[in-house]
Amino acid sequence: MAMTNFAFALEMQVRDYECDLQGIVNNAVYQNYLEHCRHKFLLSVGLDFAQMHMDGIDAVVIKAEIEYKFPLKPGDDFYVRLKPRRQGRLRIIFDQEIVRKADEKLILKARITTALTKNGRPFPSDLFVKKLEDSGIVIDEL
Amino acid sequence: MAMTNFAFALEMQVRDYECDLQGIVNNAVYQNYLEHCRHKFLLSVGLDFAQMHMDGIDAVVIKAEIEYKFPLKPGDDFYVRLKPRRQGRLRIIFDQEIVRKADEKLILKARITTALTKNGRPFPSDLFVKKLEDSGIVIDEL
Amino acid sequence: MAMTNFAFALEMQVRDYECDLQGIVNNAVYQNYLEHCRHKFLLSVGLDFAQMHMDGIDAVVIKAEIEYKFPLKPGDDFYVRLKPRRQGRLRIIFDQEIVRKADEKLILKARITTALTKNGRPFPSDLFVKKLEDSGIVIDEL
Amino acid sequence: MAMTNFAFALEMQVRDYECDLQGIVNNAVYQNYLEHCRHKFLLSVGLDFAQMHMDGIDAVVIKAEIEYKFPLKPGDDFYVRLKPRRQGRLRIIFDQEIVRKADEKLILKARITTALTKNGRPFPSDLFVKKLEDSGIVIDEL
Repeated sequence: MAMTNFAFALEMQVRDYECDLQGIVNNAVYQNYLEHCRHKFLLSVGLDFAQMHMDGIDAVVIKAEIEYKFPLKPGDDFYVRLKPRRQGRLRIIFDQEIVRKADEKLILKARITTALTKNGRPFPSDLFVKKLEDSGIVIDEL
Repeated sequence: MAMTNFAFALEMQVRDYECDLQGIVNNAVYQNYLEHCRHKFLLSVGLDFAQMHMDGIDAVVIKAEIEYKFPLKPGDDFYVRLKPRRQGRLRIIFDQEIVRKADEKLILKARITTALTKNGRPFPSDLFVKKLEDSGIVIDEL
Repeated sequence: MAMTNFAFALEMQVRDYECDLQGIVNNAVYQNYLEHCRHKFLLSVGLDFAQMHMDGIDAVVIKAEIEYKFPLKPGDDFYVRLKPRRQGRLRIIFDQEIVRKADEKLILKARITTALTKNGRPFPSDLFVKKLEDSGIVIDEL
Repeated sequence: MAMTNFAFALEMQVRDYECDLQGIVNNAVYQNYLEHCRHKFLLSVGLDFAQMHMDGIDAVVIKAEIEYKFPLKPGDDFYVRLKPRRQGRLRIIFDQEIVRKADEKLILKARITTALTKNGRPFPSDLFVKKLEDSGIVIDEL
């Protein structure tokens, strides 16, 4: 998965309170980073996660596969990147990675499988795919 | 503030992920503990914070005064206690403390000032006071 | 993976602050639950995560694979369970699940791959396997 | 406390996962924001919280007084500001505020009382005061 393939990147920085007693970012916090990147990406194509929830449409995570390669430390600057793909009519998959800004060292690779629900029921991802295409983002079938 | 005065107590235990790089519970996490104790107390008198929110009534924190006396460490068992008081018709004040279970060592003292809102507007605390009195809890004017 | 196979189970309860704006437990928080269960399991066989860190030995997560089946809501009681396996001389794998207490509804299945490091370098999992066997826990090769 | 008095300001943005089931930033999270601002300020005068801990010097919070004025919502941009003061030879006090970026609306006012410890014992704040003065920051006695 070459870097040039990513559709979106977000720069972030480790905050001290995100580190646990090992002095490195706690494993659960990376899911926060990955989620924040996805939500900022959605915003960039005109989809507001919080507003969608108020309209009865929820984006939910079905599966998370995360490979931890190297830990982030206090003060580290890093990029979170993503590439969206579709899988059938219901699933959107986000291939994501986190790299350290200073040297592009790979911190983490993840594949996050998501789906939309409307009032709690499965909802086709067409809305989402349409918004992406309107923004000029090519979304492959996985 | 003698211990016998508390209206409610909750036993909890430190989780490793709640500790930061200093190896002790992060300051913000104590607010989670204090909130969790308040919400369990509300439940014990028949008030469900999440359900109240869905009904348009929100309990909000107006002021938090917290004195940190001694840190909690990984694995520590502790009690969170509270005593509710009323202040005028709008405010409910929770005097809270956290003590280590093993030796009753005082970890933290707090005064949390709260109010109710209904659809975003101030709402008298009578509902709350009534529920407490029905449960036999005496609630003093501060 | 039948329930009778689990080596350890921990009862927990959702805290309101663990829920996000969708009104359900945030995805990252489940990793906190899974970690807390693993650390309590380690403690039950005499291994203290925090103490190990101070002794230069760190248990690190290499991979997390999590299938989210159904969300937890405010106030839900649930069990977190695990079964440890070994993979070669370096990796310990934890098969974990979260089920709702009221009806055993499956909330989440996870496979967490971990390894030990000593002063930052890979360290055989023998220490860990020995402790488990001393506690009468059978640990299969994956 | 006029705005022009602040010694340091940090721009941040609400992340969706920081919001709780009320759809607004959870009360405890503001302590994370306040801490992050203090640590970035320390860094700006050459004091690294994580490095200090490794050197046996810990900055600890003794008291937190927080007035919540108005909630932050998903996507809000905001500033966290601080002004340090000294209190005797041992205490450093941070007057902090959070304002919404769009309209300077006051979100929160806080006074955070801190002290230094060296290997667990009280340690004069001179080190800290010296660093500030070297950076040209005037630090008043409270």
